[in-house]
Amino acid sequence: MRIHLAVLYAYFWANFNVYSHAYEPSWESLDSRPIPRWFEDAKFGIFCHWGVYAVPSFSTEWFWYQWQGPQPSASVVAFMKQNFPPRFTYADFAPMFTADLFDPDRFANIVKSSGAKYFVLTSKHVEGYTMWPSNFSWNWNSKDIGPNRDLVGDIQQALKKVGGMRFGLYYCLYEWFNRQYLNDKANQFTTDDYVREVVLAQLTEIVNNYKPDLIWGDGEYEAPDTYWKSMNFLAWLYNDSPVKENVVVNDRWGRGVPGHHGGYLTFWDHFDPRHLVARKWESCIELDYGSWGFRRPMTADDVMPVKEVISWLARTIACNGNLLLNAGPTHDGRYVPIFEERFKQIGQWLSINGKAVYKTKPWIYQNDSDVWYTSQVRSKRSHPQRQVFNPQDTENTIVYAFVLAWPHESQLMLPSIKLTNKSVATMLGYSTPLLLRNVRNTTIIDLSAINWRDLPSYDAWVIKLEYLATEQRDPIKQLIKDGILTRDERPRIWKRRG
Amino acid sequence: MRIHLAVLYAYFWANFNVYSHAYEPSWESLDSRPIPRWFEDAKFGIFCHWGVYAVPSFSTEWFWYQWQGPQPSASVVAFMKQNFPPRFTYADFAPMFTADLFDPDRFANIVKSSGAKYFVLTSKHVEGYTMWPSNFSWNWNSKDIGPNRDLVGDIQQALKKVGGMRFGLYYCLYEWFNRQYLNDKANQFTTDDYVREVVLAQLTEIVNNYKPDLIWGDGEYEAPDTYWKSMNFLAWLYNDSPVKENVVVNDRWGRGVPGHHGGYLTFWDHFDPRHLVARKWESCIELDYGSWGFRRPMTADDVMPVKEVISWLARTIACNGNLLLNAGPTHDGRYVPIFEERFKQIGQWLSINGKAVYKTKPWIYQNDSDVWYTSQVRSKRSHPQRQVFNPQDTENTIVYAFVLAWPHESQLMLPSIKLTNKSVATMLGYSTPLLLRNVRNTTIIDLSAINWRDLPSYDAWVIKLEYLATEQRDPIKQLIKDGILTRDERPRIWKRRG
Amino acid sequence: MRIHLAVLYAYFWANFNVYSHAYEPSWESLDSRPIPRWFEDAKFGIFCHWGVYAVPSFSTEWFWYQWQGPQPSASVVAFMKQNFPPRFTYADFAPMFTADLFDPDRFANIVKSSGAKYFVLTSKHVEGYTMWPSNFSWNWNSKDIGPNRDLVGDIQQALKKVGGMRFGLYYCLYEWFNRQYLNDKANQFTTDDYVREVVLAQLTEIVNNYKPDLIWGDGEYEAPDTYWKSMNFLAWLYNDSPVKENVVVNDRWGRGVPGHHGGYLTFWDHFDPRHLVARKWESCIELDYGSWGFRRPMTADDVMPVKEVISWLARTIACNGNLLLNAGPTHDGRYVPIFEERFKQIGQWLSINGKAVYKTKPWIYQNDSDVWYTSQVRSKRSHPQRQVFNPQDTENTIVYAFVLAWPHESQLMLPSIKLTNKSVATMLGYSTPLLLRNVRNTTIIDLSAINWRDLPSYDAWVIKLEYLATEQRDPIKQLIKDGILTRDERPRIWKRRG
Amino acid sequence: MRIHLAVLYAYFWANFNVYSHAYEPSWESLDSRPIPRWFEDAKFGIFCHWGVYAVPSFSTEWFWYQWQGPQPSASVVAFMKQNFPPRFTYADFAPMFTADLFDPDRFANIVKSSGAKYFVLTSKHVEGYTMWPSNFSWNWNSKDIGPNRDLVGDIQQALKKVGGMRFGLYYCLYEWFNRQYLNDKANQFTTDDYVREVVLAQLTEIVNNYKPDLIWGDGEYEAPDTYWKSMNFLAWLYNDSPVKENVVVNDRWGRGVPGHHGGYLTFWDHFDPRHLVARKWESCIELDYGSWGFRRPMTADDVMPVKEVISWLARTIACNGNLLLNAGPTHDGRYVPIFEERFKQIGQWLSINGKAVYKTKPWIYQNDSDVWYTSQVRSKRSHPQRQVFNPQDTENTIVYAFVLAWPHESQLMLPSIKLTNKSVATMLGYSTPLLLRNVRNTTIIDLSAINWRDLPSYDAWVIKLEYLATEQRDPIKQLIKDGILTRDERPRIWKRRG
Repeated sequence: MRIHLAVLYAYFWANFNVYSHAYEPSWESLDSRPIPRWFEDAKFGIFCHWGVYAVPSFSTEWFWYQWQGPQPSASVVAFMKQNFPPRFTYADFAPMFTADLFDPDRFANIVKSSGAKYFVLTSKHVEGYTMWPSNFSWNWNSKDIGPNRDLVGDIQQALKKVGGMRFGLYYCLYEWFNRQYLNDKANQFTTDDYVREVVLAQLTEIVNNYKPDLIWGDGEYEAPDTYWKSMNFLAWLYNDSPVKENVVVNDRWGRGVPGHHGGYLTFWDHFDPRHLVARKWESCIELDYGSWGFRRPMTADDVMPVKEVISWLARTIACNGNLLLNAGPTHDGRYVPIFEERFKQIGQWLSINGKAVYKTKPWIYQNDSDVWYTSQVRSKRSHPQRQVFNPQDTENTIVYAFVLAWPHESQLMLPSIKLTNKSVATMLGYSTPLLLRNVRNTTIIDLSAINWRDLPSYDAWVIKLEYLATEQRDPIKQLIKDGILTRDERPRIWKRRG
Repeated sequence: MRIHLAVLYAYFWANFNVYSHAYEPSWESLDSRPIPRWFEDAKFGIFCHWGVYAVPSFSTEWFWYQWQGPQPSASVVAFMKQNFPPRFTYADFAPMFTADLFDPDRFANIVKSSGAKYFVLTSKHVEGYTMWPSNFSWNWNSKDIGPNRDLVGDIQQALKKVGGMRFGLYYCLYEWFNRQYLNDKANQFTTDDYVREVVLAQLTEIVNNYKPDLIWGDGEYEAPDTYWKSMNFLAWLYNDSPVKENVVVNDRWGRGVPGHHGGYLTFWDHFDPRHLVARKWESCIELDYGSWGFRRPMTADDVMPVKEVISWLARTIACNGNLLLNAGPTHDGRYVPIFEERFKQIGQWLSINGKAVYKTKPWIYQNDSDVWYTSQVRSKRSHPQRQVFNPQDTENTIVYAFVLAWPHESQLMLPSIKLTNKSVATMLGYSTPLLLRNVRNTTIIDLSAINWRDLPSYDAWVIKLEYLATEQRDPIKQLIKDGILTRDERPRIWKRRG
Repeated sequence: MRIHLAVLYAYFWANFNVYSHAYEPSWESLDSRPIPRWFEDAKFGIFCHWGVYAVPSFSTEWFWYQWQGPQPSASVVAFMKQNFPPRFTYADFAPMFTADLFDPDRFANIVKSSGAKYFVLTSKHVEGYTMWPSNFSWNWNSKDIGPNRDLVGDIQQALKKVGGMRFGLYYCLYEWFNRQYLNDKANQFTTDDYVREVVLAQLTEIVNNYKPDLIWGDGEYEAPDTYWKSMNFLAWLYNDSPVKENVVVNDRWGRGVPGHHGGYLTFWDHFDPRHLVARKWESCIELDYGSWGFRRPMTADDVMPVKEVISWLARTIACNGNLLLNAGPTHDGRYVPIFEERFKQIGQWLSINGKAVYKTKPWIYQNDSDVWYTSQVRSKRSHPQRQVFNPQDTENTIVYAFVLAWPHESQLMLPSIKLTNKSVATMLGYSTPLLLRNVRNTTIIDLSAINWRDLPSYDAWVIKLEYLATEQRDPIKQLIKDGILTRDERPRIWKRRG
Repeated sequence: MRIHLAVLYAYFWANFNVYSHAYEPSWESLDSRPIPRWFEDAKFGIFCHWGVYAVPSFSTEWFWYQWQGPQPSASVVAFMKQNFPPRFTYADFAPMFTADLFDPDRFANIVKSSGAKYFVLTSKHVEGYTMWPSNFSWNWNSKDIGPNRDLVGDIQQALKKVGGMRFGLYYCLYEWFNRQYLNDKANQFTTDDYVREVVLAQLTEIVNNYKPDLIWGDGEYEAPDTYWKSMNFLAWLYNDSPVKENVVVNDRWGRGVPGHHGGYLTFWDHFDPRHLVARKWESCIELDYGSWGFRRPMTADDVMPVKEVISWLARTIACNGNLLLNAGPTHDGRYVPIFEERFKQIGQWLSINGKAVYKTKPWIYQNDSDVWYTSQVRSKRSHPQRQVFNPQDTENTIVYAFVLAWPHESQLMLPSIKLTNKSVATMLGYSTPLLLRNVRNTTIIDLSAINWRDLPSYDAWVIKLEYLATEQRDPIKQLIKDGILTRDERPRIWKRRG
């Protein structure tokens, strides 16, 4: 059946007025929806920025804006001058988006090899080019100009074939140079043609066509949620859409909304609180320090080492977050080998340590210095389903300690660990149990006897701790007590190295 | 001030309900508007088909449809196979629409040199590409992809500089491959997203931005006028638009509408009734027999000779029509020299014979075989302003006879001409008066004494006849009496030669 | 059999030392060879400049030199800046030389339609790109880059199929930017690598591969004939090549050679002596006043009118010349329609007047003002075979008068015509004989009785004159006597109009 | 001063006839020239295949041959069909060789970071495209078409700036599709136009222009050395060229020549004898298992791990070879990050272990299983300068053992090592001396006490051994005695993995 937009609108309004559904178009109501289980369990996803910017592939996915926006980048302007005639437009790049080596099956296998449990593709970035044959972006989509294929559909199908991963779609609300948007903006968002004819039309289209498990909103910051009609959209998504049961969304749905409302929280890119956050959140980081979209000038040093990815992952999941790791494909449809290699190395690490990652929860402590904790329970009977962390119970709780740096003289000091005489420590991927001892209220694990040739990794290790002492501690309450969790608190932000 | 579409719609509805304006959105009301004088006087216009089809420039302006429509043309398919990779899309052609040699001033001068009094440019053809930076065709317009300029605006400005010509815009209602249109069509036009978001939005845009003197609708035939909301648009155009005083439109506003309603009538391309038509009409013909858009395979024989253009012009204006002569520019922005040459030759002919063309009206007779008549009056006092033809009055009426073939033995036989003893005949561009005589109720003009080296043309000649006998004759009534003007009459259609 | 260059050289040297052949490598010997009959009879040829310059198609066939030569053209430099990145090279144009609409049969038919009896194609212009797959210009020829076809061979085959035309090849000796040539030049032509490895190798190649009827040398002026080894080449061509019987060459074989040595003389482009020249010569002119190669900015006014071509032809053949009319094809392999139309119009004129052109000779007088003469003899018995002109003999000589402007009051004054009482005058293409009379030593032909509708042309007319008085006159001796034929005389040169 | 080829030839012949120089154009004489010291000391070089094949970048540097050679590759043919029109030629790729991100300084720094002491660039591969503006490959070189720069010169200058590396040029003698070569070949190499006009001209050109330290001949196998005039060229190179003192060449100078004559021996690609070879040799291997030129489909698994490169290096230099490691840049002028990363990792390893590599010689033993030896002497006085290996002398000889796999239970067994009581073992990059003991005639080094966190590498380790027992052994004689060094012996060849 074909979609009729007017019918859809009518439906919205009816819906919002009658309040006959589970969720109302208000943040209060929408925020009350639990995050579907699959997302809490998944922990690790791959983010994929792909679009026309992969053609110049020069600076970042913001190339167009850097070239023709209000404050042009000198190097981007010079690049254009050096390589293209003055008449050249950004849309002129589109036919060079050939995807001529794009093999969806190979692509999906590379993603899968990373150990990720979900994949999020930019269905449309700020350039406005849609990666599917949208009815509402004629001749500015991947079917009509450039690759001549439905890239969203192709990837989705290939991922389904490979199996084991959820499929999400990033969608950027605004578009730098869309005249309809600019018109609404010039009218101080008192008009909304762009939202009705493009944003809601396309969001509805991708939900109905691809039934994604996740919608990753972005580009919301110039306008309020009322302009974007985000609450209406989410109410429809939660109440009536074909994905209402399992869909997950983030929090970028209007100026001032991120970190406060929506599905899980993202706050800002590279969010890195290093303490427990009560609501489910996600941090997105780039494998290429310098860009989300693939750029040719990327050097080897610009690529995040595997060790650093594992560090991000450990401290993120210890604090109730998921990690979304980005790598952008080329204009011809490939992940460059260094990305593929990193994916495989992470995947290899996860093949041994994944049981400390997937389907775990934060623990009552988050870390001891550079050692981060996750936990699991043997039985779920006695646990509150929706609690953010697993309580510590000797018989029931398993604790995983992520060791990100080999300890001085191989003696690992863990003050938060309280032993019983039944306590057992083993390193994942290493057969012999480890020696535990308690010295002045601190648990010490002795790693000196280990044969280094048998270590499962030289980057990071996970130690499984069982039968620790039962302990009553609510980390959230503690954070409040410590004054860390306040409304305006801004967690430490991610810093570029060097 | 910026346009807000919703406001516009609101305006429409208010308008149509309150009936406070001169014209209502009904054909009865709209048809009652007189054709602005300038159009009746202009007689001869240049039609310009220019778009992305000028890039392949292979078959016609229907290239896309011939390639990928339901019944592909073998030669077009072969051309694509021979010259482009399988992945190639029609939109991929757009960046090659360089207009790199487009000089609007030179362009306007060539148009002007033809003697035309108006110019009609395809602002958008069935491919949907707009020749102006439309807010409603993002990245599929001449500013965003390809020429990187506002071609509508550039041409309009240049024509204004040259002066003496009115500016019109052709606009194609439907688009072969626009998914929004196809969706409405699949819904049997019970939905109208495409019309609201594209057609009305763009029509309003061009009217407000360019204030054209003429809107040449086309591509209406798949859907009824109610789908296109044509009557609403025209009511707005006539009542409230910035061009309400002088704008002229044609009749292609919905299935079954051409030849019946709107402004002037066009019926179909190459309309050639060869009898008087009571309502103002226009015939459009191509300088290239084979295509409206420029095509590279055009041969010299495909180009209409000047003599034939003049014939078309003479018998068209004799019957109350205007002639709109088409020639398509190249992808790089030029009229090829053979078009330029034809334009100049026509212009040269009109520089001598234009007084028999511009500002004339049909006469009480339309033709004697291959001789066609127009007329003028010395004084307008005694004439009904809006009558289609000038009555014959000895003192007041001047008759022009267009002689399209030199007569046998130089004796021109004109049965419709009734002499008085004051009657005078002169050839335009030739000084000596001609000899008139009456033989057996037929007027004969003797051209044998003419020095052929002094003739103003070897193609066609105009003889000015003054002080002919007064005669009461209503050619319209005569046509009705003769049974020629009936509803279903199909006038002789234009035939390709050879 | 394959060519071995060393063997060829050996052959040359042997040849030139032993003097065993008819022609020696000296101008004295080479100049003594008679021009093959076919060339003297042909009178009218089509010249075709086609190469990579048809891609930018902007200024002329000298585009490269105008862009990157010592004195760049501002407009060419601006064009490159406007349309191509700074890195772009001239050779980068070659892949865009698509010839995608090149149809050799259609091409040949258009050439044929002009009435020409020979065709001369630029096998290589100063850019060095060869239009055949030369062994000595790897990847800089039409097979290896661009059209991917043997254009010389394709055209030759198609012309052969059409029939009735001889095939010639233009060959440019020097190349602006060939480093081997520039090296020889820097060595003041004391070295000759370029000549041996490129020029002689390629000339031999085209002679052996295509067996052309004509070699049109050019680009000789920077170096002496000894550098070019022209005399050696011509001796080989005349003595031993497969075309030794019928081949014709021109005179551009070294600095100072044109106008003095070789085959027929060309002097310089647009040579227009307006008096008899004792040695066979040829004038080359362009249909496009502004360029030999096709250029897109050509206007209708830049195209020579048919009347002017006929004038050139008449006064050229009256003075012992042939006319070589140039028109350049486009990068996609077409003659633009205005060229095709001119060709057809000339051909139509020649279909009536060709008997006054082909196989004629100059007469004892060349012209009376704007009337130019050719002649034929009924019987060749009594005439010297190799005489430049036909003597005037009442019974034997037919004289053709080319009338390029209709005479005042239709009275054509011809002082050089001496009547007998048998004298007859008829216009070619017009049946009724014309009236002749003698008034004060001048023959007058009365054209006033002509019915202009029956005229075969409105541009130029040929009057056939028979049985005129016998008269002894040697126009060559007269020129010498009049002091017109002197060594340094520079005939009036062709001037660009307006 | 400009080169005149003829003069050069004259010079050759004089030279070869008079025998006035040190080296005669015979293998006997040429083979007698010692390999310049710098090459023996350098050990490790970077090989760089770069050319037009980097544009399709699809299969290998043999793309053209795979596409249009006698036995086309189905996948290459399919790739062309899928992405280019039928007319497309290989030379049409050249303008897309943009090198638009080529930064010679960055390029040189990446090369330098590998620890290599020399760099060899393909100045011309079998496609014939020259990477410098050759006088003898007009419009088929990197200045005239494509990058528009002298890539050979640019890289040489940048390497000079960086310092510490010698510069070599690979040159392919034959060209698949060069018509002059194919002509000579069709003549069974009885003609030699191609060699004289292209090969010798270009070799002379690069030697004179760039003064390379190394000429890496290739593509010799279809024709004998006499056709290539290799001996003449080398005699000139050794006697009179500007690089006669330091230049090094390989052995690919004619059919049957590799492995027998020239400078150092290469035998075939991936040569891997695993025993001492008396004459200096070199093995070339690719970082990308599948191609020498960069190809986009390369996967992460296709890239040789650092550990494997080190293994190749160790066993090559232990046997008197140098290792030349290849990586191809992209069409836009970059090393992809995975190549850059490998280079850096190798360089990092060499920064610690380089003293066991550079300026060493083979030892009297080559290996104990997977442990390979090199050696140095404290004083060179008592050693024969040109001996292939260093003799073992307690006081004077230092032995380096390359350990490529960590030994079972950390006990390294080295049967060839004979201890004295002064013997000392230290690991490069690790401070504490190692324990040595002799058990049943085998030296055992105990590595169990090592703190793995302090290891300089986890891939391969070098142990420096001093004051070992003096021992008389000539490994060459031993090989002969063992029957390993025979004329027709074919050493084990390199095998592709899995």
